[in-house]
Amino acid sequence: MKLEEIARRLGCELRGDGRVEISGAAGIEGAGPGEITFVSNPKYAGKVKDSRAGAIILAPDAAETPIPTLVSDNPYLAFARVIELFYRPPEPVPGIHPTAVIEESAEIGEDYSIGAHVVVGPGVRLGDRAVLHPHVVIYPEAEIGEDFVAHSHAVVREHCRIGDRVILQNGAIVGADGFGFAPTGDGKFSKIVQSGVVVLEDDVEVGSYACIDRATVGETRIRRGTKVDNLVQIGHGCQVGEDTVLAAQVGLAGSTRVGNRVMLAGQVGAAGHLTIEDGVIATAQTGIARSVEKGKRVSGTPEMDSALWRKNYVLMHRFPELVKTVKELEARVKELEGRE
Amino acid sequence: MKLEEIARRLGCELRGDGRVEISGAAGIEGAGPGEITFVSNPKYAGKVKDSRAGAIILAPDAAETPIPTLVSDNPYLAFARVIELFYRPPEPVPGIHPTAVIEESAEIGEDYSIGAHVVVGPGVRLGDRAVLHPHVVIYPEAEIGEDFVAHSHAVVREHCRIGDRVILQNGAIVGADGFGFAPTGDGKFSKIVQSGVVVLEDDVEVGSYACIDRATVGETRIRRGTKVDNLVQIGHGCQVGEDTVLAAQVGLAGSTRVGNRVMLAGQVGAAGHLTIEDGVIATAQTGIARSVEKGKRVSGTPEMDSALWRKNYVLMHRFPELVKTVKELEARVKELEGRE
Amino acid sequence: MKLEEIARRLGCELRGDGRVEISGAAGIEGAGPGEITFVSNPKYAGKVKDSRAGAIILAPDAAETPIPTLVSDNPYLAFARVIELFYRPPEPVPGIHPTAVIEESAEIGEDYSIGAHVVVGPGVRLGDRAVLHPHVVIYPEAEIGEDFVAHSHAVVREHCRIGDRVILQNGAIVGADGFGFAPTGDGKFSKIVQSGVVVLEDDVEVGSYACIDRATVGETRIRRGTKVDNLVQIGHGCQVGEDTVLAAQVGLAGSTRVGNRVMLAGQVGAAGHLTIEDGVIATAQTGIARSVEKGKRVSGTPEMDSALWRKNYVLMHRFPELVKTVKELEARVKELEGRE
Repeated sequence: MKLEEIARRLGCELRGDGRVEISGAAGIEGAGPGEITFVSNPKYAGKVKDSRAGAIILAPDAAETPIPTLVSDNPYLAFARVIELFYRPPEPVPGIHPTAVIEESAEIGEDYSIGAHVVVGPGVRLGDRAVLHPHVVIYPEAEIGEDFVAHSHAVVREHCRIGDRVILQNGAIVGADGFGFAPTGDGKFSKIVQSGVVVLEDDVEVGSYACIDRATVGETRIRRGTKVDNLVQIGHGCQVGEDTVLAAQVGLAGSTRVGNRVMLAGQVGAAGHLTIEDGVIATAQTGIARSVEKGKRVSGTPEMDSALWRKNYVLMHRFPELVKTVKELEARVKELEGRE
Repeated sequence: MKLEEIARRLGCELRGDGRVEISGAAGIEGAGPGEITFVSNPKYAGKVKDSRAGAIILAPDAAETPIPTLVSDNPYLAFARVIELFYRPPEPVPGIHPTAVIEESAEIGEDYSIGAHVVVGPGVRLGDRAVLHPHVVIYPEAEIGEDFVAHSHAVVREHCRIGDRVILQNGAIVGADGFGFAPTGDGKFSKIVQSGVVVLEDDVEVGSYACIDRATVGETRIRRGTKVDNLVQIGHGCQVGEDTVLAAQVGLAGSTRVGNRVMLAGQVGAAGHLTIEDGVIATAQTGIARSVEKGKRVSGTPEMDSALWRKNYVLMHRFPELVKTVKELEARVKELEGRE
Repeated sequence: MKLEEIARRLGCELRGDGRVEISGAAGIEGAGPGEITFVSNPKYAGKVKDSRAGAIILAPDAAETPIPTLVSDNPYLAFARVIELFYRPPEPVPGIHPTAVIEESAEIGEDYSIGAHVVVGPGVRLGDRAVLHPHVVIYPEAEIGEDFVAHSHAVVREHCRIGDRVILQNGAIVGADGFGFAPTGDGKFSKIVQSGVVVLEDDVEVGSYACIDRATVGETRIRRGTKVDNLVQIGHGCQVGEDTVLAAQVGLAGSTRVGNRVMLAGQVGAAGHLTIEDGVIATAQTGIARSVEKGKRVSGTPEMDSALWRKNYVLMHRFPELVKTVKELEARVKELEGRE
């Protein structure tokens, strides 16, 4: 595809030779002569001059380059659109595979693709254009909106409710039992029936083997647009806000509330019954033990202000010296005290 | 259901108006007029006066409240029983679904529910009242006790042995190969056949996508009543005691022994070949690098006494100041030494 | 089997009575009279004298023992071979189970075992001697080499490429979508199509529920001989070298490069776009925030040199004292300054 054609489809301004032929997209370091790349983060601006890319997408204020350029206010988003010009995932096969087991009382919308060995339980309601890859299991009475995509081995448990345009990656599990056991007083535990549900609002995506547990009573809720990465654990009764990002292997204990536009980096954990307010950022592996106020950036276990944590980390490189210095000072002060 | 009826069924003393109609159960903060709630932890006692709940379960020594009250020595356990009065999970369908594949040599007890696409391998023995949800796979020669419940995609691997009343949540995997590779001397690794098994004793529950690896030789064993949360990793050859709680995303490396009534909070890790004795508590994200004595409470990576760890954490907030102070003291002492 | 027979099969020198009958293999602490064990790590050499084992595998320079001994330069590897003499996992059933769904355009080699409810999509190429346990799903156009073993619920996604002798444990997922979302400028996220693939080279093993994400563009690659444990997360675009070991619950964010013979212990995390060079070792729970040079050993979050980290840990046990001492020194210096 010629670059000028890409410019036209994306509605981007073109700088340089639009006749260059582009056959694919690649990252700034790997892109070759027939490929288009992008730079969004100013941190990588220096890499443009060494790039062998055939074309590049840049912000309006980027430095000039001899590489033919598409100008976009949001180069990363434009790059995402370019990828779609060159790649289409395999088309779902329309209809219901003969090995799928659909209970008669299930209501299924139009234009579906239901793969081999899928199981849809009694009373399920499934909106239009659902794509259920092989081996998806929908338990009884689940309600799911339009444009649902579930990859192989994803599961929606009984009574859970899912909005429109939700994507479940392979093995994502919505609504398994929360971890609820009452001590019986003799050192043993008695299982507490997990009677609540999980609600996923519109435009949520859930990664592979992420676990979103059903509530003991009431609901666990993930609000509109939030993205949950692989192997994340969300405990029973949690409430997660809109457009929040939970990176891989994050764990939230039960009944914790997470606000809107929060970013929890990989392997962050949060204790139960906390409130993590809007816009909070926690760096990787942070252990959040108390509620965190709006917009704060936290790190460490337990969490503290990220700037302080980073400063302490640098100072810790000289901690053995510090200890030695204090010991020496003690001796020197003692010596001074002994003088007359 | 009237509150007096609930009191009767639970065998609890009733204080206040027993004719109030209760239609469900809820947490102390969310409970409305038609709902019953509870307070068990004295920390939440202050929330009673703001509650809009229709009824509440309290300990005998709780402060009086105008809310109609059920009195219980164990309010949390009583609440768990109340939930069961109002909620029943979907009934398993009796019989064997026609799409299930049961090898002829498998022996299955009575009153089973075996769902769609379940696979039960040759030589499997399965006790009475088994509930296998769709897509459960039991490998050859596994032995499983009575009242077994396995949710979709749970797997029991070859030769593993499971007691009575065991519950596997979705995708729990009992007996996948341990991570065993012998260095061959030229920088490569040779797989070691994992010839051992996993044994789960009675009343164990295993969470979604938790992995309990089979032993290289001998067995990996989880003793009676222990509860394993989602996404937990238990390495080959581990022995976990009775009534122990392993919260989500905990990881135990191989051959580690964990005692009875231990509590490992979320994301705790333990190195291999350790002994974690009875009653140990490890707070979230603790990294246990050495054996831990009976009843100790540990935190940090590597672990230390929790009280010391917490004290250090507080002091670290003034660490930059401390470093500055020491530097200044050095100068001042030098100054003093130069006097005279 | 007589010990002399084992010696012959392994090609090991025999010391002591070769007629002792051995019926199984066990670890040094558990081995009884009819069992053979080994000691490889000199740390455990002291346990030999208390062992009740019927025979033992030792290095040539090990201290003498009355226990009949096989001598091997690599006792651990020899032990691995002994296990295989006594244990064979269940034999895969040849052929294709009638419930399996194999698309006509799939090409499958010879001598396969394809279990119940397996799904093999259109255009898939699968080498000789493939063993697909029940419920494995191979998405369209995947290419897989010879001697492939995939346990139940393992998944290979569209277009991914897998070498020879690769093993996927239960639920391993190769090629689910990477976690890629472009901010749209109004606080929301737009999904970026993940157009790349995953490539697993020869002799890779992937643990249960490990997730290796497909690249946004290009490929995520795991090189020859690398072993990935359970519940590991490998982000889109990562490159992992040869003979590297990623222990359970490790997480690599996107586009990170890991060298050859690297060892990341349990629960280690690494940020994205880093380079972790050949031979690096990271101890459990390390949080790698910057690139790490060849052969370094790192610990802590963020990572620092392991030796320094361990020293600091020891010193932290006296941190409260240190703080107190500095406070006292301040007072004493002030006192001294006031003299004269």
